[in-house]
Amino acid sequence: MRYRLTVNLEKQTVDRKDLPEEAAWLGGRALLDSILLAEVPPTCHPLGPYNKVIIAPGLFAGTTMPTAGRLSIGAKSPLTGGIKESNVGGMAGIVLSQLGMGALVIEGEFSSPSLQVLLIRQDSAEIVEAPELKGLGNYDTVAALKERFGQKVVIISIGPCGEMKMAAATVAVTDNNGRPCRHAARGGLGAVMGAKGLKAIVIDPQGARPLKAVDAPAFSKAVKEYTKIVQSSKRTTFLQENSTAGLVDVNHARGSMPTRYFTAGSYERKDAINAERLKELIRQRGGSMGHTCMRGCVIRCSNVFNNENGQYLTSGLEYETIVMMGSNLDIDDLDTIAQIDFRCDNYGMDTIEIGATLGVLAATDLFVFGDCKRAIALIDEIGQGTVLGRILGQGAVTTGKIFGIRRVVAVKGQSLPAYCVQSIKGLGVTCATSPQGADHTSGFVSEEPLSREGHVERSRDSQINMVIADSLGLCLFTGLRAEHNLFVRLVGPLTGKIPTEADIRSIGRDALWQERTFNTRAGFGPGHDRLPEFMNTEPLPPNDTVFDVEDEQLDRVFGEYPGHS
Amino acid sequence: MRYRLTVNLEKQTVDRKDLPEEAAWLGGRALLDSILLAEVPPTCHPLGPYNKVIIAPGLFAGTTMPTAGRLSIGAKSPLTGGIKESNVGGMAGIVLSQLGMGALVIEGEFSSPSLQVLLIRQDSAEIVEAPELKGLGNYDTVAALKERFGQKVVIISIGPCGEMKMAAATVAVTDNNGRPCRHAARGGLGAVMGAKGLKAIVIDPQGARPLKAVDAPAFSKAVKEYTKIVQSSKRTTFLQENSTAGLVDVNHARGSMPTRYFTAGSYERKDAINAERLKELIRQRGGSMGHTCMRGCVIRCSNVFNNENGQYLTSGLEYETIVMMGSNLDIDDLDTIAQIDFRCDNYGMDTIEIGATLGVLAATDLFVFGDCKRAIALIDEIGQGTVLGRILGQGAVTTGKIFGIRRVVAVKGQSLPAYCVQSIKGLGVTCATSPQGADHTSGFVSEEPLSREGHVERSRDSQINMVIADSLGLCLFTGLRAEHNLFVRLVGPLTGKIPTEADIRSIGRDALWQERTFNTRAGFGPGHDRLPEFMNTEPLPPNDTVFDVEDEQLDRVFGEYPGHS
Repeated sequence: MRYRLTVNLEKQTVDRKDLPEEAAWLGGRALLDSILLAEVPPTCHPLGPYNKVIIAPGLFAGTTMPTAGRLSIGAKSPLTGGIKESNVGGMAGIVLSQLGMGALVIEGEFSSPSLQVLLIRQDSAEIVEAPELKGLGNYDTVAALKERFGQKVVIISIGPCGEMKMAAATVAVTDNNGRPCRHAARGGLGAVMGAKGLKAIVIDPQGARPLKAVDAPAFSKAVKEYTKIVQSSKRTTFLQENSTAGLVDVNHARGSMPTRYFTAGSYERKDAINAERLKELIRQRGGSMGHTCMRGCVIRCSNVFNNENGQYLTSGLEYETIVMMGSNLDIDDLDTIAQIDFRCDNYGMDTIEIGATLGVLAATDLFVFGDCKRAIALIDEIGQGTVLGRILGQGAVTTGKIFGIRRVVAVKGQSLPAYCVQSIKGLGVTCATSPQGADHTSGFVSEEPLSREGHVERSRDSQINMVIADSLGLCLFTGLRAEHNLFVRLVGPLTGKIPTEADIRSIGRDALWQERTFNTRAGFGPGHDRLPEFMNTEPLPPNDTVFDVEDEQLDRVFGEYPGHS
Repeated sequence: MRYRLTVNLEKQTVDRKDLPEEAAWLGGRALLDSILLAEVPPTCHPLGPYNKVIIAPGLFAGTTMPTAGRLSIGAKSPLTGGIKESNVGGMAGIVLSQLGMGALVIEGEFSSPSLQVLLIRQDSAEIVEAPELKGLGNYDTVAALKERFGQKVVIISIGPCGEMKMAAATVAVTDNNGRPCRHAARGGLGAVMGAKGLKAIVIDPQGARPLKAVDAPAFSKAVKEYTKIVQSSKRTTFLQENSTAGLVDVNHARGSMPTRYFTAGSYERKDAINAERLKELIRQRGGSMGHTCMRGCVIRCSNVFNNENGQYLTSGLEYETIVMMGSNLDIDDLDTIAQIDFRCDNYGMDTIEIGATLGVLAATDLFVFGDCKRAIALIDEIGQGTVLGRILGQGAVTTGKIFGIRRVVAVKGQSLPAYCVQSIKGLGVTCATSPQGADHTSGFVSEEPLSREGHVERSRDSQINMVIADSLGLCLFTGLRAEHNLFVRLVGPLTGKIPTEADIRSIGRDALWQERTFNTRAGFGPGHDRLPEFMNTEPLPPNDTVFDVEDEQLDRVFGEYPGHS
């Protein structure tokens, strides 16, 4: 039986209890949503004592299933004001699950100015003081904690942005090499940890063992089938060879690659930042392609990027970062982008939100598109918390507000990811309607990208299926979404309680309903399910398209708002 | 027949039409609400082309009725994101009405960087360029416009804060002495004018004549009755003798006077900023008490405050400003407060919102309570638009966000006025539930201030009656609220169409419903009708009370949200 650990920082207590029977099929996002809705008052201040940080490994995390060890981290978001689940790779999901943990709930508010660290071992959990970590970046934090608690520990941590309670602050998770380069990046969850005075969670893997399925042979058989599907997919080959940087050419060709803050969907100098260029630099300098963020991954979409001297600079240089810090800022230099990526990981800030924020700032005289040095300097200002940095660290919407700039590309306070949805309209429907705010991982839709019709069902199904994947712990890139029958044959043998395909779908549908219920009570209404108005009227080159899906269709994705019906 | 003037800045057109027959009883806030709901898309960007600035004199403005010439200015608010009507004195309401205008609607977005001025004459309206006004304060703007268009013009204008699109930017209206010291201060309406590139509206009073009632003898009789009620009221005597500064002692005694940013409800040095001290300084230096903001006012609550050399410094030194810039910041010096008041009027910023903002800032090392020089310097930073000033100019909620400060006293993004509602709970119910955001003028409730029960009906009635007053053009201080029978005998003879008492009540009820409908469509829900959570738990000295009216009661003030039912 998986357990739930409740840590109250105010009372300085830890409490370990079995998860209830009815949570048998719930992991990751679905489990997190159910706890958040039940226990966090939707109208509470996100940085106040009533908010909780909830961490839950996906249901398959820690089993023999590869590429299924994702971790959900959530809270009421300081960026959106609504519910937030941010999904992250790295080793924490696997190890927490193998130690038996189903959910970790961090509540209360630590009032001392000293920072706290939660230390989780096989049979214990304790809160320890760590004033020496104050202001440290994630890399130094991880080094100090390994020094103190052993080199093998897996670490979840925040950088100075989280300590400063910035709405773009991330939660970092160490990867397969022990580096804090995988991030639950969206929605400002690092600020919620920071507000609670919790700098890090240290997990000692001693005693971690792969989870045993109730019906091991049946589970093993289904895992083989699953692995074969993933390994034989063209997507896997593409990602192994190109990492997500391969999406640069795809989105450039489709006209959906944000350039100069979403004023164009293709970039004339995309060859300077695409996968070919990335691979060329990695060949020259060392580093690696086909890197894994978690143990045993069969997709291996990550990479390690070295600097000009052949020394490690950053890992997981991803499509989103390359575009939001590259073409989006008219920066055509992978070295600059990689330096920014390292800094963002180290300070603990979301590269999507901050890339968007610098894009907004380009409408003032404080930043000029293409200025690499200034971009790096501004990232440093955020990490150091100068007055300007404090503005930028709150993200694009706040920055736009401060400087009187109306053209901000965000939904529910969260910036759009690296997709111009005027040229991939199904994804626009998801970005508008997702309870998570604008997010490509909430339900990707790429069919008929320029059509204004037909996306309602696609987006709804994709959002439901994405919640299922986020709940089972499946990486987005397994590509598995609608394979509910296979999920039946995995979940049943693992848990000993056999679901129907309808039960699987219910995991996704119910969780989405819970997210929307939370948001409604937090004060959201249909008026929040909208893209910025200029996207409806400003034609986007090269397709010269606008986002013209009608409001009425957006409202049909989920029908009535819960409680508004 | 009153006319509606529609000014499209994008097309550079002006269009004059009679108001429709069914608007006969509608003026001010009710008329404004109906136009806003019908014509402004609730989800539009407040600073974008789809928002409109709507200006409407109260129904009685320009008649022989004294103290009834208030003007409503409204738009979708950049501060709250909801509907906003801000009510202002000064001469514009009377003069516009006497020129026959019922409503002025400013739409579209002027794309040139040059500023525009709207010139309204008896028989014409035209848009003229005024690049020379760029960056000017309201006092210099008014001086320049009088130089250009004649000394007798009445002016509605914005200062640099409006030009910079700050969410705390006001719209200034010249008073009975031609000074830009009466402000439609709340909700950032100056930013909406600024976003449209409209610096000022110049009204030439040539041809303005008191409005004739359809049944002049009956109207005249009712006006006499009204005037007698107002003149004989104790409130009138109190305000004439003390101006609103008299409320310092009242609120101090009740324990509802914000001190050191709402951490106490009484101020140990209140004698340094109360009415007695104000009158003492005015006696010593000249200036005046019993001053009128508009012609013919029988209440005369305004004052003129001179500096130490006996020269004019500011006018209308009001309770809200004295407290929000005084005890709220631990500033016990009326000279400092008056200097701040002048600067706020000149830069065009809301003294309530900015006083609250400096209170929030006191939680950082950027401001220390009681530092008069620093407070003035920070006001100047806002007016000059430094990076820090840009933050502060967005108000308390944004400032709190930027600096990671949770303890912010606001509802729907708008700061509470100078009342600690833990010690005047009925007003707290209004501040929580008003569609306007926290606002003492939306429905004052002072009965049983420490009781947690009994305020639902009081607040509802007070909010409805306040809309009626705001629609008829009555000053808040007439004290007339529930005198629906008298209103019948005024509205009937004036318009020639006799209402019932129920019709009068409907004016208020329908307009509130329209405001709430707009807000719902803009994305508001019951979750927004809440005071900040710390007010429910943090006892406020000297009464050591918390705001303990239950959420369920707050939701009962208006019942279901429109469209949520």
